[in-house]
Amino acid sequence: MSDSFPGETVGSVIAGDAVTGWQDALERQSLARAKAGLTRTLRPRAAGDAVVDLAGNDYLGLAVHPEVVEAAVGALRAYGLGATGSRLVRGSTEAHAALETDLAEWLGFPRALVYSSGFLANLGAIRALAGPGTLLISDRYNHASLIDGCKSSGAEVVVAPHADPAALAALLAAHPGREVVYVTESVFSVDGDLAPLADLHAVTSAHGALMLVDDAHALGVLGPEGAGGVAAAGLSGAPDVVVTATLSKALGGAGGVIAGPEPLARHLIDTGRTFIYDTAPPPSVVAGVGAALRLARRADDRRALLTTRADATVRRLHAAGFTTPAPAAAVLSVPAPGPEAALAWAADCRDRGVAVGCFRPPSTPDGSSRLRLTLNAGIAAEDFERALDVIAECAP
Amino acid sequence: MSDSFPGETVGSVIAGDAVTGWQDALERQSLARAKAGLTRTLRPRAAGDAVVDLAGNDYLGLAVHPEVVEAAVGALRAYGLGATGSRLVRGSTEAHAALETDLAEWLGFPRALVYSSGFLANLGAIRALAGPGTLLISDRYNHASLIDGCKSSGAEVVVAPHADPAALAALLAAHPGREVVYVTESVFSVDGDLAPLADLHAVTSAHGALMLVDDAHALGVLGPEGAGGVAAAGLSGAPDVVVTATLSKALGGAGGVIAGPEPLARHLIDTGRTFIYDTAPPPSVVAGVGAALRLARRADDRRALLTTRADATVRRLHAAGFTTPAPAAAVLSVPAPGPEAALAWAADCRDRGVAVGCFRPPSTPDGSSRLRLTLNAGIAAEDFERALDVIAECAP
Repeated sequence: MSDSFPGETVGSVIAGDAVTGWQDALERQSLARAKAGLTRTLRPRAAGDAVVDLAGNDYLGLAVHPEVVEAAVGALRAYGLGATGSRLVRGSTEAHAALETDLAEWLGFPRALVYSSGFLANLGAIRALAGPGTLLISDRYNHASLIDGCKSSGAEVVVAPHADPAALAALLAAHPGREVVYVTESVFSVDGDLAPLADLHAVTSAHGALMLVDDAHALGVLGPEGAGGVAAAGLSGAPDVVVTATLSKALGGAGGVIAGPEPLARHLIDTGRTFIYDTAPPPSVVAGVGAALRLARRADDRRALLTTRADATVRRLHAAGFTTPAPAAAVLSVPAPGPEAALAWAADCRDRGVAVGCFRPPSTPDGSSRLRLTLNAGIAAEDFERALDVIAECAP
Repeated sequence: MSDSFPGETVGSVIAGDAVTGWQDALERQSLARAKAGLTRTLRPRAAGDAVVDLAGNDYLGLAVHPEVVEAAVGALRAYGLGATGSRLVRGSTEAHAALETDLAEWLGFPRALVYSSGFLANLGAIRALAGPGTLLISDRYNHASLIDGCKSSGAEVVVAPHADPAALAALLAAHPGREVVYVTESVFSVDGDLAPLADLHAVTSAHGALMLVDDAHALGVLGPEGAGGVAAAGLSGAPDVVVTATLSKALGGAGGVIAGPEPLARHLIDTGRTFIYDTAPPPSVVAGVGAALRLARRADDRRALLTTRADATVRRLHAAGFTTPAPAAAVLSVPAPGPEAALAWAADCRDRGVAVGCFRPPSTPDGSSRLRLTLNAGIAAEDFERALDVIAECAP
């Protein structure tokens, strides 16, 4: 944006071109993105549209579950719409406290704190664990919120090869005597693969490092009672592990959570900027997520259906000539020849009533483009079968 | 946390003390905060508690308005609880689009984009406007989200004297030829004073700088139809002004908004990390905020009541010997002798059924402690009168 501000035209007035120069510069960037096939478009959907959704993250289909909706309605009528303040001022309700108790028990950690978004939970967790003297080792494919958390922490950041315990061990050995936090997702958001958490943790604990795991795409899907990828790896409650997750995916709501030991929770309550200086999530959302959590714990049937559908999707895509790997949870990645082809593929599917994710740079960690398919146990079987046909038939 | 990680004990195992050393360090910090009177406590409230609320930010009392609640209930039943995806994948609904249209029209800018929190809106706005070559001039009393946005932008940041056009002009003159974004709140969150926006804008526009205004505490309270502090200053739609605000204060809900010109909106949709990589706010919240917006535009009666209550509060506090300045909107600051005294004052009020804000470091820009009183037009007159008595009677 070096040509975007008319800093040299001191004395110009608001009616002149000077004050709109920044807009012209943004416009030029927009045109450049359009030429590269990287323009994004908001497509508002109507309530109850007939689209088969293989794009959203409502893995267990709980966002529309009657018990979830009615729990939220009840809290709306009891509390009103917003929390009306930050958690420490006026925003903490009994619904927040109950959800935090239930999340801690489910995840297997002493305490859990909810945030208004998973993005803010990740920023808060990294800031709490890392200071200027810390070395943050961050998986190469980590989500934007983790990357931004690392960058804004003030700590030294090293990007690690993807999901690679041996490479992590080498990095730790190369930085002896350092305070280290290793930051990773469990199920990665774009490709849907699962980090080898137990092996990675064996490495971090052997070196006295902490491990921060974003369990957003595994919560509700993996582990005993759906308690997530950390639970599946046997790491629930480990004293050198901290977990973050979203409440907006398998739990069907909105917001994020940090789970860990009691001293971390107290630290976040006293000093965490994205906890203290943010309006609390709405009581209705928190109550709805609480209902979803109770459903998710006993949703082994829905989890089994996700496994069945993952197998069916991989078989169908392989038969159509694609190399999609078997997913670890409910996220599948299908390579596309380029951003325009990915966009056209997704558009053709949409025209035939199937929503799929279209991931292009900068949303992909490796610069390539792909479709992202996300499974949903709440979709009717015939709709799911039809969606697989549409995706295969629209392939470039 | 230099003693918090056992980096030197390579080879330690998870059962040893090494892996809990970081928890011990956090515990020691917690004890130090306790000694300094800086511990914070979550106090979950029950639905419909009898507390008179002079602590929350529901300035117009709309969070509990039946039209707001029923709009949210309707969207819950139509869409389900969560948006189920990011805005660009599956999270945009017709409720989001309608609210963005209404916000843009109300604020007087070409486009508005909603975020899941005001914190994320501020991070996104600053990142969009500032690059490594930009000079960010940030008011000394700015909110944590603006400070963190400036710090994480990668731009050079200069902290400006508080709400001071002459000082701003001097800073701009001292940095000729630079791309500059001046960042300020309209009504400041802790002291409740109003920045002289028209004068500040005269300075920025004369120097070809942009102005970013966080209008969180003025939206719904100041300006024609409650359109905010920027509107009150005659700056709606100015081509060198960008506005952010929360949807969680006078609009009674949750989330944030960025309003500005069309090219900025396209830039945010294509590249804004806190827009792209975050689950969309829930349709029910968005629909409820939309109803609140319509009510807020015609709530001149509630705004007049806020003015009456502000006058009454200042008179009562002055009579009790306090120097509280007249508030610009609905936020009043009452100095306390220290953090312990502020905490005790707020606790005594709470014991007598009145919630007030207690602001101590690091939540205060100047390191001093105070009560923050926030007015609410929805409180019954007799409750409000009683609350003022309680505050005066509990004063240290």
